[in-house]
Amino acid sequence: MPTILGQNQYGKAETRVVKITRDGATHHIKDLNVSVALSGDMEEVHYSGSNANVLPTDTTKNTVYAFAREHGIASAEQFGIHLARHFVTSQEAIHRARIRVEEYAWERIATSDAREARHSFVRTGQETRLTQVTYDGATWEVVSGLKDLTVLNSTDSEFWGYVKDKYTTLKEAYDRILATSVSARWRFHWTGDEEPVPDWETSYAEVRKHLLQAFAETYSLSLQQTLYRMGARIIEHRGEIDEVRFSLPNSHHFLVDLEPFGLKNDNEVFFAADRPYGLIEGTVLRDGCEARIPVDLTNL
Amino acid sequence: MPTILGQNQYGKAETRVVKITRDGATHHIKDLNVSVALSGDMEEVHYSGSNANVLPTDTTKNTVYAFAREHGIASAEQFGIHLARHFVTSQEAIHRARIRVEEYAWERIATSDAREARHSFVRTGQETRLTQVTYDGATWEVVSGLKDLTVLNSTDSEFWGYVKDKYTTLKEAYDRILATSVSARWRFHWTGDEEPVPDWETSYAEVRKHLLQAFAETYSLSLQQTLYRMGARIIEHRGEIDEVRFSLPNSHHFLVDLEPFGLKNDNEVFFAADRPYGLIEGTVLRDGCEARIPVDLTNL
Amino acid sequence: MPTILGQNQYGKAETRVVKITRDGATHHIKDLNVSVALSGDMEEVHYSGSNANVLPTDTTKNTVYAFAREHGIASAEQFGIHLARHFVTSQEAIHRARIRVEEYAWERIATSDAREARHSFVRTGQETRLTQVTYDGATWEVVSGLKDLTVLNSTDSEFWGYVKDKYTTLKEAYDRILATSVSARWRFHWTGDEEPVPDWETSYAEVRKHLLQAFAETYSLSLQQTLYRMGARIIEHRGEIDEVRFSLPNSHHFLVDLEPFGLKNDNEVFFAADRPYGLIEGTVLRDGCEARIPVDLTNL
Amino acid sequence: MPTILGQNQYGKAETRVVKITRDGATHHIKDLNVSVALSGDMEEVHYSGSNANVLPTDTTKNTVYAFAREHGIASAEQFGIHLARHFVTSQEAIHRARIRVEEYAWERIATSDAREARHSFVRTGQETRLTQVTYDGATWEVVSGLKDLTVLNSTDSEFWGYVKDKYTTLKEAYDRILATSVSARWRFHWTGDEEPVPDWETSYAEVRKHLLQAFAETYSLSLQQTLYRMGARIIEHRGEIDEVRFSLPNSHHFLVDLEPFGLKNDNEVFFAADRPYGLIEGTVLRDGCEARIPVDLTNL
Repeated sequence: MPTILGQNQYGKAETRVVKITRDGATHHIKDLNVSVALSGDMEEVHYSGSNANVLPTDTTKNTVYAFAREHGIASAEQFGIHLARHFVTSQEAIHRARIRVEEYAWERIATSDAREARHSFVRTGQETRLTQVTYDGATWEVVSGLKDLTVLNSTDSEFWGYVKDKYTTLKEAYDRILATSVSARWRFHWTGDEEPVPDWETSYAEVRKHLLQAFAETYSLSLQQTLYRMGARIIEHRGEIDEVRFSLPNSHHFLVDLEPFGLKNDNEVFFAADRPYGLIEGTVLRDGCEARIPVDLTNL
Repeated sequence: MPTILGQNQYGKAETRVVKITRDGATHHIKDLNVSVALSGDMEEVHYSGSNANVLPTDTTKNTVYAFAREHGIASAEQFGIHLARHFVTSQEAIHRARIRVEEYAWERIATSDAREARHSFVRTGQETRLTQVTYDGATWEVVSGLKDLTVLNSTDSEFWGYVKDKYTTLKEAYDRILATSVSARWRFHWTGDEEPVPDWETSYAEVRKHLLQAFAETYSLSLQQTLYRMGARIIEHRGEIDEVRFSLPNSHHFLVDLEPFGLKNDNEVFFAADRPYGLIEGTVLRDGCEARIPVDLTNL
Repeated sequence: MPTILGQNQYGKAETRVVKITRDGATHHIKDLNVSVALSGDMEEVHYSGSNANVLPTDTTKNTVYAFAREHGIASAEQFGIHLARHFVTSQEAIHRARIRVEEYAWERIATSDAREARHSFVRTGQETRLTQVTYDGATWEVVSGLKDLTVLNSTDSEFWGYVKDKYTTLKEAYDRILATSVSARWRFHWTGDEEPVPDWETSYAEVRKHLLQAFAETYSLSLQQTLYRMGARIIEHRGEIDEVRFSLPNSHHFLVDLEPFGLKNDNEVFFAADRPYGLIEGTVLRDGCEARIPVDLTNL
Repeated sequence: MPTILGQNQYGKAETRVVKITRDGATHHIKDLNVSVALSGDMEEVHYSGSNANVLPTDTTKNTVYAFAREHGIASAEQFGIHLARHFVTSQEAIHRARIRVEEYAWERIATSDAREARHSFVRTGQETRLTQVTYDGATWEVVSGLKDLTVLNSTDSEFWGYVKDKYTTLKEAYDRILATSVSARWRFHWTGDEEPVPDWETSYAEVRKHLLQAFAETYSLSLQQTLYRMGARIIEHRGEIDEVRFSLPNSHHFLVDLEPFGLKNDNEVFFAADRPYGLIEGTVLRDGCEARIPVDLTNL
């Protein structure tokens, strides 16, 4: 046979689970999109179609729902750990499980007597929170993150002093809008059951806070500089994080030329362009740590 | 000629304009997506291709940018009024202008000293605000609204007592999740330059507040009942509004059957389904007023 | 009560039904997305939440599946007629039914012996076919159409002789790309069970053919002229159609300025822009017929 | 400094270029979406914001347009090679260029005299063709592929004999629909300027043909088996390809239970589900070759 099987994985993707926890009349909500990918002794199903080692993807979906009931959803990370451990330890043929989770945030609706509603929610709609838990029976890897967090500085951004070749026409800018839609992933130092487990909920809130502050407080000479400052700020403040990777579209806001209409445009009116966009990607590492987050950040 | 021309309109759609207003070091942002549709003496361009009456769509785009500079953007509604008036009064061949605006909201980033950043913003990402201004040289119609405001009640919703025919298999529900992504449009009473102009910004904030409160505070026997209460609450509280129309997908959250796994599911674990979904649409009117919002709410 | 109920409708949207018909080893496929909207005596469900007149949306979904089995799917239009008739004639409280259908086309895969596979298909992925059937117990209205049919003429398009005002900067064009993504709806003359029923499948294929040919064969001085020629060609050739409406984005392909690089660009290299875009909408009518297709074409 | 910079890259993403080539009255069209990612000596721009080594992303965009004019677009792969070579050889600080291209296919409109139009096109709308060219100054890597090729077998698919654990409820299937939307990438053996260059256009057409045939002609006991057959068929027939990777959603078509309505459903009526879906991913290698395509296929 001139062909062989390489890396492979399978599972149910995008199982949408909503968990309501009732604390008297006060309800809490967790809203997740869970994707399971399993690897192991899977040669035969590829070569001959024998499913003898295949736990059906329908079963991985059922497990997500059953575990939401059995273990609750304290955090996306903790829920992913429960699932990954289960698949690797309960099925001999499965050697590695990767659980990806998207989480959608909800906030309470304010009622007419200015209190928080106890069981009425409105989706915040801002960034989507992400996590990926990988387990091979010995070592854990947790990479969390977010996507679609759209931010903008209306000043304190410049771009000049760059290389000019024969195809360069861009004018230097000494005061421009800097805008991007942040996609970020950060890898936790934690790899083993014996180590103390991070507080996943606090960690997320703090990383997000530092990321936003670094964006706001960096006087930027290039989006790369801002990227690095965001990553460094996270690593400096959060000992549980060893590595951060960003994918940052440079969402161009072009100053509109209003001179033909006899008008000045002193950084007031901009055209927000869709495509093309600059795309700035990079990893920031705690010194001495290895990079493990892939170069291309994928959807989940 | 066996064919004739019917209703027609043209213009530039989806002009993305961002307006920064500097109040010292504190900046303000308005972020709009503006679509212009003009009608009038346009037979010849259709029949023979003569553009003698056609103001180019490129010009309508330029006008959006120039007006952002000349008039500012106090509100999406006010900006639409400036534009509609301009096209109808400055071009003899144009008899009617319809301006549609989507508005994206931004909030200030909190800085590390717990203040609001002065020129750094994060997009709220919740609902998209909408308005449509129509002017024919004599009468104004302003229909504002929103889309993609996703809300959920985790209890206080029932559904029973419905018609059963030979294709009915649904079980009655006495405690269910009620969730929807609100698309709403509301028409203002204001139609003329002599009447006092509503405070568009306050009106939007108040309509949104009443809509959310009515959703949260209605014990619901059907989504139709909730729809009606949301509309009625708006009209009862906001004298400037005569008509409200909703398009409400019933975003089904199905209780997962965990019995095969020996688990109870006492309204805790749900599958959030995508398609199909119920779609509940309806108009609520101030008594004595006419319905003018079309049955099908379109994208803008 | 200061508020009253206006137009309202409800039903299950986006029921995805795939019907396989086996003709020996040769299979045929119909792939539809069906949305049901019902109206009638629905005041009480809005005012008090009484569902006594409400056939559940779940039942309308079941009916779609049962009818696919009972009646087959000869065409989207015929299937819609079966459904609309059923809801209006079987439920006293329902006075009007509107069935919308999206249809996705598949073609047979070519096998290695250069024949057509008998039960293997690849989705064509071109336009989506649409129909809307409305029935009020007495009169039928069938509006069919398509969306996302993307077409381009690389020459034979000009744009000049237009109005110039103070905001006009556009240069006249004597040879440009004309491109659009056609969204069209056409209304059939047929309104009653006594009249001969159109051959829905042939009609669709012929309308699509004439639309494409008119686009290709019109030397265009404006997209409005092309729109009119497409509509007129359909009405001239297809006696079963009384009215056509188009929504045509002018998908701008801008000639890139290569002069800064010492290169000529003789209509060779273009930037395909996303937004903003011109939006040209219009109705073409058979002389003597009334316009009934709404101004704004909605998604289905 | 406790943090360091890891892998990073930047460039202009999604430059939309349309190239028209005139062969007398007959025009040819190439429609690409080009994304450039450059790496090299980029520490300073991240650490201090110095752009001294940064060729602006605006320049990479200009280069795409200029090269479409200077070199033409014989194929997406060839165009990517021109661009990658240029950036790496003309800029000392740039050590590696990765060019990604999406290509949209067009076919000629049939005219009313049953000929092919010479300059009128309709987008085929089926799969999107992809390529990625990477160059580090010494070695080339070309990975081509496609996405969104939706295929369906209405029989000749089974699924049984799988693992059953306590969360398994799935019933075995002996005749089911197998449907997926193929995302595939294949890596060429070619790595150096001295080796004969593949015929990129022929290669794409042939790989696509074999992929479709293998899908149609495999009697499938699992989607993994079909995946492997598709990859093996490509490698067996196309000597220029060393590695293929697939990401195959199992697009479930559930047989609808019509028994409550007194109807049999003998593999006739199906519900096409959206989410969750099985996701089957795997690599097929020419024996002796190394796997280099990343596990997660990204959008471009």
